[in-house]
Amino acid sequence: MLLDQRLLPGQKVYLRCQTAAEVATAICDMAVRGAPAIGIAAAYGIALSAGRLSSAGAGARNSLERDIDLLASTRPTAVNLSWAIAEMKAAMATCAESDLAKVALDTAIMIHQQDIEQNQSMGEAGANLIGPGSVLLTHCNAGALATGGYGTALGVVRSAWGKGLIRELYATETRPWLQGARLTVWELAEDDIPVTLLVDSAVALLYQRKAVDWLIVGADRIAANGDVANKIGTLGAAVLAKHYGVRVMVVAPESTIDMSVPTGDDISLEERAPDEVRRLAGQQLTPSGQAVWNPVFDITPAEFIDVIVSNVGVVKSPDSSAMRTVFNKQSQQTK
Amino acid sequence: MLLDQRLLPGQKVYLRCQTAAEVATAICDMAVRGAPAIGIAAAYGIALSAGRLSSAGAGARNSLERDIDLLASTRPTAVNLSWAIAEMKAAMATCAESDLAKVALDTAIMIHQQDIEQNQSMGEAGANLIGPGSVLLTHCNAGALATGGYGTALGVVRSAWGKGLIRELYATETRPWLQGARLTVWELAEDDIPVTLLVDSAVALLYQRKAVDWLIVGADRIAANGDVANKIGTLGAAVLAKHYGVRVMVVAPESTIDMSVPTGDDISLEERAPDEVRRLAGQQLTPSGQAVWNPVFDITPAEFIDVIVSNVGVVKSPDSSAMRTVFNKQSQQTK
Repeated sequence: MLLDQRLLPGQKVYLRCQTAAEVATAICDMAVRGAPAIGIAAAYGIALSAGRLSSAGAGARNSLERDIDLLASTRPTAVNLSWAIAEMKAAMATCAESDLAKVALDTAIMIHQQDIEQNQSMGEAGANLIGPGSVLLTHCNAGALATGGYGTALGVVRSAWGKGLIRELYATETRPWLQGARLTVWELAEDDIPVTLLVDSAVALLYQRKAVDWLIVGADRIAANGDVANKIGTLGAAVLAKHYGVRVMVVAPESTIDMSVPTGDDISLEERAPDEVRRLAGQQLTPSGQAVWNPVFDITPAEFIDVIVSNVGVVKSPDSSAMRTVFNKQSQQTK
Repeated sequence: MLLDQRLLPGQKVYLRCQTAAEVATAICDMAVRGAPAIGIAAAYGIALSAGRLSSAGAGARNSLERDIDLLASTRPTAVNLSWAIAEMKAAMATCAESDLAKVALDTAIMIHQQDIEQNQSMGEAGANLIGPGSVLLTHCNAGALATGGYGTALGVVRSAWGKGLIRELYATETRPWLQGARLTVWELAEDDIPVTLLVDSAVALLYQRKAVDWLIVGADRIAANGDVANKIGTLGAAVLAKHYGVRVMVVAPESTIDMSVPTGDDISLEERAPDEVRRLAGQQLTPSGQAVWNPVFDITPAEFIDVIVSNVGVVKSPDSSAMRTVFNKQSQQTK
């Protein structure tokens, strides 16, 4: 069951996916989005595929492989997707054929539960870095909706709010999908955490006028040197943060860290369809054939990031050396 | 007759204003926008008011004064508005009562024609600074629609395009009003000038990936030290331009220069209604009571501007001293 994030906040509709192909479509079309949530959805997609093996007879394993490939190809930037698929494959590789469906489902549930626990521990660790009376800005939605629950960047916001540390909280609307205006605002309202919305281009003025202490964001992939792929606009918000003396915190579980990628230059950045910019809420904004450049992620060099908060440790002033002290073990395990 | 810019590009509807009050409403509600266009519209609004004097009998002068005050109060940031009103007052101050209507209309027409001529000369001057094969970015709409015709920033684009200097042209969509997506794209298409649209938050990635040569924008008010008030997002785009080695050109007629204001700190920045961000194209994007910060202008410090192109001269590396060499005479005339 996936809450269809395209319809929020206007409608709360759940999609009931019966097959891996339906899950793949939900990921491609952004019914579910957010790096950790995509990984979890893909894990459940594989569990759905494994659950149908017994009834599928001969060629069942081939069908499972095809479903896994389909899920792996849905979105290129977030590494949590391939991480979750690797976890699922590893668990299924060592079990008997008859246990496959159960092992797949148990593993998907474990990945999901683990993500929530990791978010809570990151929320605590991130909040410990924030002083009382702080002014925070977040970009896009790295919240409960983007994860198994609780959230990465919004997990830190939730924990900091619980400790009474937040004086003011701002969120960008995050064009073109308006994850900030539609999702961040919606889920914070559910928790009674007040937030003020602004257009993406007002970030520089916000820094200049509102004494912002921290920009807090999630990530879709973090390279071995600490470069961060995240929602388009993160790069600009981070470079401007450096200029205005605002600190930058990136919050992401170890499944988002990709030690196999040396720098951000090696991360593939997804560009999506022009109609996401040409149209909004069913309305045509521009002429239908208007040329559009629609990159949906950018790479923030590590030098603009003050701290990366993960479930296995906090990396201050990230670079290759600092990253290795926290994530090297994980990297060797993956290999 | 005002082309209603709120309905473009979907519908091309002209508003026929009969009174100054109707013109004031059109300015407040952004049926007409763009600093020079607002000034011209206000001048015609005064001409409408003066044209009714003869039929209005006693108290006619009072009614004209009230209309002028109403027009002056419509928008706070663009100085062209008060400049145009001062020009109209000066022309009407020295003429006979019986000539008032004719003098007012002639002066409004002169302000309008002068603006077009100034745009064409700035277009030429700005294009002379641009090398062949250039990649340009513009923000908001500083085009024919924002002026008497031809445009300030887009005037330079038109002239550069005519000289074959442009390899690629990009435009931001410019939330919340989408002046880029709706207006810039529309008026460039009318002139067969190809342009690629991007969301506002993609500017940093554009600079990083596309070898942009110039950011070219208009202005709503320029202080005596060269600080520039312009559409929200200009500040961020300019600070990022400095970081990525992109040059910044501001194009504005002398009516936009306000030598009576020492620095940008003294310019009042308009904040508009939250519903401009909460709603789009008739659709509710956020909960109806969502808190919003909606500043629609920002101030770019002169240090981030490489050149100001005006109709009376070009100021490179603007500061108080460089500004005085071009604009001091104008300032003394105004006083």
